[in-house]
Amino acid sequence: MQQNCSNIALVTQTAPITAPTHGGRAKCLQRLVRLDLPVPCTVALSFDMVHKIAANEVPSIVKILDNFETDDLLCVRPSSESSDWGGPGAVLNIGMNDERFGQLSAMLGSQAAAKIYLRFVQGYSVHVARLDPEMFDHINGQDEEAVIAALRAYENETEEPFPQDKSIQLAEVLRSMARAWEGTTARLLRQAKGAPTDAGLGLVVQKMVYGIGKGECGSGVLQLVNSDTGMPQITGRYRRQSQWRDALAQEQGALYLTRDPRGNSLEEVAPKIFETLKAQAELMRHRLREEMQIEFTIEDGNLYILDGIKIARLAPAAVRIAVSLADWGIIPKEEALMRIEPHALGELLHRQIAPDANRDVIGSGIAASPGAASGQIVFTAEAALACKSREEPCILVRRETSPEDIRGMYAANAVLTERGGMTSHAAVIGRGMGVPCIVGASSIRFHIQKKQLLSGDGRIFEEGEMITVDGTNGQILAGQSKMVEASLEEPFRTLMQWAEEACDIEIRANADTAADAQTARNFSARGIGLCRTEHMFFQADRMTVMQEMIFANTRTEREAVLDRLLPMQKADFMELFRIMEAMPVCIRLFDPPLHEFLPSDRAGLRDLAEALDLPLSDVTRRVESMKEYNPMLGLRGVRLGITVPEIYEMQVRAIFEATIEASHDRELIIPEIMIPLVSAKREVELVKSRIEAVAADVRTKKGVDFDFKLGVMVETPRAALRANEIASNSSFLSFGTNDLTQMTYGLSRDDAGRFMAAYVQQEVFPEDPFHTLDTDGVGELLMLGVERARKANPEIVVSICGEHGGSPEAIAFCRTYGFDYVSCSPFRVPVARLAAAQLAISSRTS
Amino acid sequence: MQQNCSNIALVTQTAPITAPTHGGRAKCLQRLVRLDLPVPCTVALSFDMVHKIAANEVPSIVKILDNFETDDLLCVRPSSESSDWGGPGAVLNIGMNDERFGQLSAMLGSQAAAKIYLRFVQGYSVHVARLDPEMFDHINGQDEEAVIAALRAYENETEEPFPQDKSIQLAEVLRSMARAWEGTTARLLRQAKGAPTDAGLGLVVQKMVYGIGKGECGSGVLQLVNSDTGMPQITGRYRRQSQWRDALAQEQGALYLTRDPRGNSLEEVAPKIFETLKAQAELMRHRLREEMQIEFTIEDGNLYILDGIKIARLAPAAVRIAVSLADWGIIPKEEALMRIEPHALGELLHRQIAPDANRDVIGSGIAASPGAASGQIVFTAEAALACKSREEPCILVRRETSPEDIRGMYAANAVLTERGGMTSHAAVIGRGMGVPCIVGASSIRFHIQKKQLLSGDGRIFEEGEMITVDGTNGQILAGQSKMVEASLEEPFRTLMQWAEEACDIEIRANADTAADAQTARNFSARGIGLCRTEHMFFQADRMTVMQEMIFANTRTEREAVLDRLLPMQKADFMELFRIMEAMPVCIRLFDPPLHEFLPSDRAGLRDLAEALDLPLSDVTRRVESMKEYNPMLGLRGVRLGITVPEIYEMQVRAIFEATIEASHDRELIIPEIMIPLVSAKREVELVKSRIEAVAADVRTKKGVDFDFKLGVMVETPRAALRANEIASNSSFLSFGTNDLTQMTYGLSRDDAGRFMAAYVQQEVFPEDPFHTLDTDGVGELLMLGVERARKANPEIVVSICGEHGGSPEAIAFCRTYGFDYVSCSPFRVPVARLAAAQLAISSRTS
Repeated sequence: MQQNCSNIALVTQTAPITAPTHGGRAKCLQRLVRLDLPVPCTVALSFDMVHKIAANEVPSIVKILDNFETDDLLCVRPSSESSDWGGPGAVLNIGMNDERFGQLSAMLGSQAAAKIYLRFVQGYSVHVARLDPEMFDHINGQDEEAVIAALRAYENETEEPFPQDKSIQLAEVLRSMARAWEGTTARLLRQAKGAPTDAGLGLVVQKMVYGIGKGECGSGVLQLVNSDTGMPQITGRYRRQSQWRDALAQEQGALYLTRDPRGNSLEEVAPKIFETLKAQAELMRHRLREEMQIEFTIEDGNLYILDGIKIARLAPAAVRIAVSLADWGIIPKEEALMRIEPHALGELLHRQIAPDANRDVIGSGIAASPGAASGQIVFTAEAALACKSREEPCILVRRETSPEDIRGMYAANAVLTERGGMTSHAAVIGRGMGVPCIVGASSIRFHIQKKQLLSGDGRIFEEGEMITVDGTNGQILAGQSKMVEASLEEPFRTLMQWAEEACDIEIRANADTAADAQTARNFSARGIGLCRTEHMFFQADRMTVMQEMIFANTRTEREAVLDRLLPMQKADFMELFRIMEAMPVCIRLFDPPLHEFLPSDRAGLRDLAEALDLPLSDVTRRVESMKEYNPMLGLRGVRLGITVPEIYEMQVRAIFEATIEASHDRELIIPEIMIPLVSAKREVELVKSRIEAVAADVRTKKGVDFDFKLGVMVETPRAALRANEIASNSSFLSFGTNDLTQMTYGLSRDDAGRFMAAYVQQEVFPEDPFHTLDTDGVGELLMLGVERARKANPEIVVSICGEHGGSPEAIAFCRTYGFDYVSCSPFRVPVARLAAAQLAISSRTS
Repeated sequence: MQQNCSNIALVTQTAPITAPTHGGRAKCLQRLVRLDLPVPCTVALSFDMVHKIAANEVPSIVKILDNFETDDLLCVRPSSESSDWGGPGAVLNIGMNDERFGQLSAMLGSQAAAKIYLRFVQGYSVHVARLDPEMFDHINGQDEEAVIAALRAYENETEEPFPQDKSIQLAEVLRSMARAWEGTTARLLRQAKGAPTDAGLGLVVQKMVYGIGKGECGSGVLQLVNSDTGMPQITGRYRRQSQWRDALAQEQGALYLTRDPRGNSLEEVAPKIFETLKAQAELMRHRLREEMQIEFTIEDGNLYILDGIKIARLAPAAVRIAVSLADWGIIPKEEALMRIEPHALGELLHRQIAPDANRDVIGSGIAASPGAASGQIVFTAEAALACKSREEPCILVRRETSPEDIRGMYAANAVLTERGGMTSHAAVIGRGMGVPCIVGASSIRFHIQKKQLLSGDGRIFEEGEMITVDGTNGQILAGQSKMVEASLEEPFRTLMQWAEEACDIEIRANADTAADAQTARNFSARGIGLCRTEHMFFQADRMTVMQEMIFANTRTEREAVLDRLLPMQKADFMELFRIMEAMPVCIRLFDPPLHEFLPSDRAGLRDLAEALDLPLSDVTRRVESMKEYNPMLGLRGVRLGITVPEIYEMQVRAIFEATIEASHDRELIIPEIMIPLVSAKREVELVKSRIEAVAADVRTKKGVDFDFKLGVMVETPRAALRANEIASNSSFLSFGTNDLTQMTYGLSRDDAGRFMAAYVQQEVFPEDPFHTLDTDGVGELLMLGVERARKANPEIVVSICGEHGGSPEAIAFCRTYGFDYVSCSPFRVPVARLAAAQLAISSRTS
């Protein structure tokens, strides 16, 4: 009965069955057989054959049936390359017919036989004949009468008798399953899970073990760890007189596996079988090098293993399992690292909505900062602060956020905005703070004035009502959802340590505040790659000083005002240096346009006029005159540094004074100062000479020497193209891929949200370039930039500090072109490090 | 007396004196001597020698004086390489002293001698001793007493006697003039006129011919053409008993040259001398191949030529003179072309403020569209229209202009805005229409609400008051100024024809309207290189339809509205095709963000709500929601074409229908359709397939075949970098250098005005990159783009259509990289063509 044709392979044969030809399930079953586990006779049909069946080529049913006894009932299950890609439902008890019903009634009792026949008729009707499952709703009981009723129902619907011939039954089941795989819905579903367009389906034909009948009969599943946590725990269920996964489908009446105060258990009713099962599960773990769920059936006291399935798991479990397998020596550390999807790691770092929670989705937007939170709706930063003081959780809802909202964002448990994209203000700040955030939620209507949200289906949510924001998938839910807490315990730390050992590119964090810096250290970032100093000015007391500075009329006046900011900035930097303990800290000089510090609404203007003791009309005119058409492309960055040099002078003085005071014997601090938005080398030269003058002055005044590094943030295409000229005046170049992407595409990240979804859907862009580094366009500029910079200055340190910094694709790119480090938001450091480790491992083994 | 040392060269010597070593004046004088003109003995000091004198090296005065008779009085005049670069004032009558005064009194009479001595004492005091000219104010009369008073004044001020030794006098004059040249002010002044930092000064020492004394004595200047127009006309003055250019300095009492009803003339008082002078002027014209002004002196009936100076001229005269010289066979056509500065040609094309007009400057801004106009101040487009209907000239003053102002701009004689840069809305539209325009006039305060302008010096200008806008130099003047009309007569046309013959790159015009197209044809543009279709929608009736389209909720609704625009667009295109007579017309599909068509003020919103019959709150919300952070980088161009495809579909249908109807036997029209703001090839593919579908539909419905070309406007850095991919789907690529510059620098043209002046002044950027193509950065993208496009599609047509299109630098760049054509605003076509002709001529001769 040995099968030569590899399209129809008996799993007991010697030739190995592979996942790419016959699917994962077939492959696994062959391995189980080779472990001498009691697997019923199984035949695997290849992708190729199933594809032909779908194209109406009739398979050689005889060749398949040849492998089984004439009386065997069969089941057919899907076997796609990856179990994640799904597949058609299993069909059980093929071969059942009136004649066999009689025989089985005699063997197992008529009720058992009826149960088996009924299951087949119903399965065949629904999966093969595509009839409505409700047609069997009127049938009660599981006896011969019910069988007759079911057969009649089938005949009424199809106007044909129920097929009695096992060959025909099998052929129809195979055809139906093969076709289902090719359907559009199924294809879209599996493509969403990463399957290629031409993913194949294998089918597995297995002899049925009844699980129903005399003696100890039943079926169940068992696994050795908890799927949510990965902790050792024998979980699963067993159901007497049942088939397949019935024990899970109807938990009511099922038995526990281990002794349990709540009821009977397999361990008690069949202790020997239970022990055997446990041993088999452990064998599978060791030999299949994975935590497997066993599907088993007991027939008259005999144990059969129907299947082994890689257990589904949440991210925390995935990490613990991988680390445990490595700890037990079952897999090497490198493989443990390779098994964790870097993006999935992100889930560990934040609270998430529990997978089994109800989701009453009222709208969705761009998932801008991962994690989930529930809280009452508030529409102003003030209301968020009030909630915080009452210790009530809240969700800050705004049309868009601006620097004035920052304190409110800190107070809120999550942020939801109508507008903006992945790198809008709310998104960047949210990710930086680790606060869940959804932006560009255009499916909801925001009535900020009326303090109402209007869901797509017309429901109104007033201020104070509870909602939940899922920043991981972008959904907004009504009410309060059940959560799974962030999980940063031992296995996570171990994994991170292994990743760090494997990693061959440095990972730094973007950190603007002491809190950010502390997070960065907690995640073992190797330094700060980008400290955006302007965020330090958005605190209420400093904001006012900034506004005074903006309204000052002369250089002297401006300097006087900035003198008041100097000690605050100095304290900021000392705090950062203290936390980072002499690790590199790269401080970007002031970047945003000054008008970001000015109010735009009437009330704000009035407050400002009062604070500055100026007529409202003057203030309004001045604010008005500072507005820009395209602030992204306006008077900011180094342009401000050159036209209003006092700001940079104050900042570098603060940096140098902080450097002197924070340095001590063990820790010599060498700050890195970065100039933003450069487009011409002369900009660097001018700022450099001014910084050097300040350094000389500080050295003289303090009588202490110190060192510093000066570099450039490359974020305009021109700076990348002219990197040779710029590099000769710089110790380092850090590519700001956010702005570089914006300018290379001529596309504002804040405005892209309006059409990016449509663009990606129509495949105009393969991906949102603000998510995934555009290696073709932006990438060429990075490449040219690095190449030219290195030619002019071989010592130069090169990095990426844009939002892409933490993404596996960008890290791969940076490794290829020899970047020295990447810098990303603190909460992405673990993701980045794992991705980098995986790339290093892959490149070593390939 | 022949001089061997070339540092001190006698102009009669054989070795040629050159402008780069001794200056233009010295060179010219040598040529006059060689023409046997009666030039008094002259010695030229080289740049090198003068430089040494300035550095306190004492020249060999003896060697200089050796060339002259002991009794000769001398004068010293500057001789820089180009006469445009200025130089210190001439000093006359060197060698005059008490002794010589006695001799001359005897020879010429004491009054003549006193006049001569007085002139020297005053000249020496002011130019050499640097005394205040007012110290001589108390001296009346020109007699011995006056001389004594002047000498006493000198001694009182300097506490030294007036030098009597000719060697010392000459040495001091030379030192003083050499030093004056090295002064900072003088250097900045000449650098502003294009002199290099190390420009040298030569000096010319010439024997004085007195022009004062017995017989017919006097001095004057003569030239054969009018300096303003270039028309043949003997102009100049002669003054009896005078020296140097006194006849021009004090016209009162001077004689006309030719017979004149208003008074005596040289022609009458000395007919023979007049005839000789005329003949000598004609000789100089022929031999010096230029229109020269003769400086002459008559001494006791003998004529001397002191100098010949290339006549100063306004642009119309420059053109006529060059064309005339070529017509007369004195210079070849090519040289005539080379002699006209392309930028100066611009002056011909517009009315200008007369050079001799009073300029009461009340402020200045960026000279955004050349030409000048006077009119009453109006602050709204409505007021401009009202003025127009009353046939009163007006100047439209706005904070900035928007599409709503376009009709007002057409009605106004000039436009003045507070904000914006060279390529802001007002500037682009102004240049397109040929309306003078100043933008970014930040030195004036604009109180739009109060309807007042406030000049820097505190003067208030109310609505209705008359001002003048000089769009050529950016000045705003109080009142109405005297104007010089545009001059596009015969010599201009001839020059343009010669330019066209010499030119080896095609020049097209950017033209949005029939009027633009007509201007383009008048200037012989070879087609339309850029028709910005959106400008067609800004007319009041179409604006409303656009707004309806924007507020339509479904594709069907939008299509219904666009159906009403279709016939209008079709008529637009037919008109363009008719005017251009089968020359290429490149039509850019709709580009701006839709919100440009929406009002932003309350009144506008109310009107819109009324027009659309929608609640104001709805309209406001919708308008609000369409606002963009950075409209330049937002939902516009091809992004709109892909997300709201109905607009492009309507436009191409209109183009195709117009093509069919406008084509006839003689003229087969092949429209060029251009897709704006592309950044990925898939954008082109998608739009291309939709356009082809519309083409097929029109062919079927009309039963007529036609052809068209599809191309891409390359204006994002990414499109330039990926030009290979994009080129394979395109017949042509046109580089939009405005946007490309913005994105390459990360710099909005509209916001750059705020700091560009400071940036250029500090030499951060060598030039405003929106004025002068940045060949380093933007240029590299153009270069890469062309190279990659040609590699993928060798047949592709490549051009520039940005604002730079008409600039000589950009044309030089385009010629170097083999662009097929440049396109610029219609009024720049002549400038561009001349620049291109000059480049072609230079490259042929070099």
